[in-house]
Amino acid sequence: MTTPGMLPKTQARAYAPASVANVAVGFDLLGYPVVGAGDTVTVRRIDAPEVRIVSISGTDVPLPTEAARNTAGAALMAMRDALDLLFGFEIEIEKGIPLSSGMGGSAASCVAALVAANELLREPLSRDALYRFSLEGEAVASGSRHGDNLGPMFMGGLVLSTLERVVKLSVPAAWHSLLVHPDAVLETRRARDALKGDYPLRDFVAQSAHLALVLAGCQRGDPELVREGLRDVLIEPRRAPLIVGFDAAKRAALDAGAMGASISGAGPSVFAWYETRAEAEAAAPRVTAAFAQAGFGSQSWISPIDSPGAVVL
Amino acid sequence: MTTPGMLPKTQARAYAPASVANVAVGFDLLGYPVVGAGDTVTVRRIDAPEVRIVSISGTDVPLPTEAARNTAGAALMAMRDALDLLFGFEIEIEKGIPLSSGMGGSAASCVAALVAANELLREPLSRDALYRFSLEGEAVASGSRHGDNLGPMFMGGLVLSTLERVVKLSVPAAWHSLLVHPDAVLETRRARDALKGDYPLRDFVAQSAHLALVLAGCQRGDPELVREGLRDVLIEPRRAPLIVGFDAAKRAALDAGAMGASISGAGPSVFAWYETRAEAEAAAPRVTAAFAQAGFGSQSWISPIDSPGAVVL
Repeated sequence: MTTPGMLPKTQARAYAPASVANVAVGFDLLGYPVVGAGDTVTVRRIDAPEVRIVSISGTDVPLPTEAARNTAGAALMAMRDALDLLFGFEIEIEKGIPLSSGMGGSAASCVAALVAANELLREPLSRDALYRFSLEGEAVASGSRHGDNLGPMFMGGLVLSTLERVVKLSVPAAWHSLLVHPDAVLETRRARDALKGDYPLRDFVAQSAHLALVLAGCQRGDPELVREGLRDVLIEPRRAPLIVGFDAAKRAALDAGAMGASISGAGPSVFAWYETRAEAEAAAPRVTAAFAQAGFGSQSWISPIDSPGAVVL
Repeated sequence: MTTPGMLPKTQARAYAPASVANVAVGFDLLGYPVVGAGDTVTVRRIDAPEVRIVSISGTDVPLPTEAARNTAGAALMAMRDALDLLFGFEIEIEKGIPLSSGMGGSAASCVAALVAANELLREPLSRDALYRFSLEGEAVASGSRHGDNLGPMFMGGLVLSTLERVVKLSVPAAWHSLLVHPDAVLETRRARDALKGDYPLRDFVAQSAHLALVLAGCQRGDPELVREGLRDVLIEPRRAPLIVGFDAAKRAALDAGAMGASISGAGPSVFAWYETRAEAEAAAPRVTAAFAQAGFGSQSWISPIDSPGAVVL
């Protein structure tokens, strides 16, 4: 039962940051937000029992405006259905994250829409509860349910996102991420196609060891464990050939002292972890120079790995 | 350079406990010791520059007495070579762990031999250093290098063992393991053959999520995370059919309130985790009854997951 007069607001706006997902060792599971890039979504309550996308700005590329085919739209449809809401939503999306960049753009629109819509509910939900609806939205964009971009946007910091729940993990406050986005696009679906086929058990054992080392290293603040673990033997070898300049960019990041470096999300962006902000800052021009050598301009962002998630504006 | 007169001892004895390896989510990587079953090894320094097995007691099954084919012998040969020792070792092995039980028997002989031999060195090594030699010994027994039984025997407690290092993990002191060994054998090589072939990525992702949940749950003492994570979707489905009575035993363990239950090592032993010793004690007769129903007598051991490793006697 929802009575308009008892609702706190009829319109809300929220911002969700970009994020680095997969994080070398947590394919479809691990991620963290990035400071400085994000999507902003305005949601209005409407009497019509439906979800409408009224505008998408900040991008030249046409995105689906049919609600069921848009990440933000599909997520709010899932919310309406689950909560039996009598009213609908109207959505305005301002893209601030480059499309098909591996920076979680579709997830950010979806999370910002849910966080904004949550403000319009008489009994707002926890972010854990919103996470479930966001999985529906993300599935529309990527063709599969996985929350590695979504969890960090809801919770902030390094987050494990399974299909059932999100778990925020400890990570030292001083550790910083460098994210570099070359001016190239790599479609998520194409990046996923590169992963088709089966995998040998030995690669999985090696990758599991790396995952455990990274989790233990983050929890203890032991960079040696992370240096040993932050290496992707499973996914990166199959996707790296799709990214022109990747090898040189990764090499530059590691030569600048990174604990590890790999592909952000489905790529083509590259991330690297450093023990201090100063190291990440010194590394940035070296990594962008590597992409320049390969013929691509690029943008970079430096943020603590333990960065904030989405906020209501 | 080793001068006999400067050596502290000419004989030493050590005990290494049995262990539960794999632990559902850490195939070839995770393990912990078990209180109440173990191998004892006596090592004597000899002038001859060689390693000899002089006796193996406590078992009716013939084990290799040629040093290079015996886990304890191969490990001490690796130690001699790496340290350029001028003297040799003579080894007496007293088996206290049932053979081919999935309780780490070959690893225990290997670890006990190294811990004893270490007492005979002028400059004893750290357990991390000994771990490397033990990987050589274990390879002789199982045909592959993996340290999931070895690391816990050296360090005690829940341990991550990669090919490069051992990392002791936190786990609540109150949490207990029930280990039940049916009177049946399952050869390690046969159990490994069941794993041949490739694996779909989705199973890896699910298993990685479970591993991360268990590690986070152990570190925080959050049984709900462990309940969600302590499930093997990768290895157990392929090995369980080799173990008569496994399904019923696992069901009994879970019905008694286990956070999770699976195969210990390569099987046929079964382990389960409980939040208290009392729960594990109440579960034991139910699990042994399940094996009895399948026609097997069985033995059980209850110990804290955070149990001690090998000791010099």
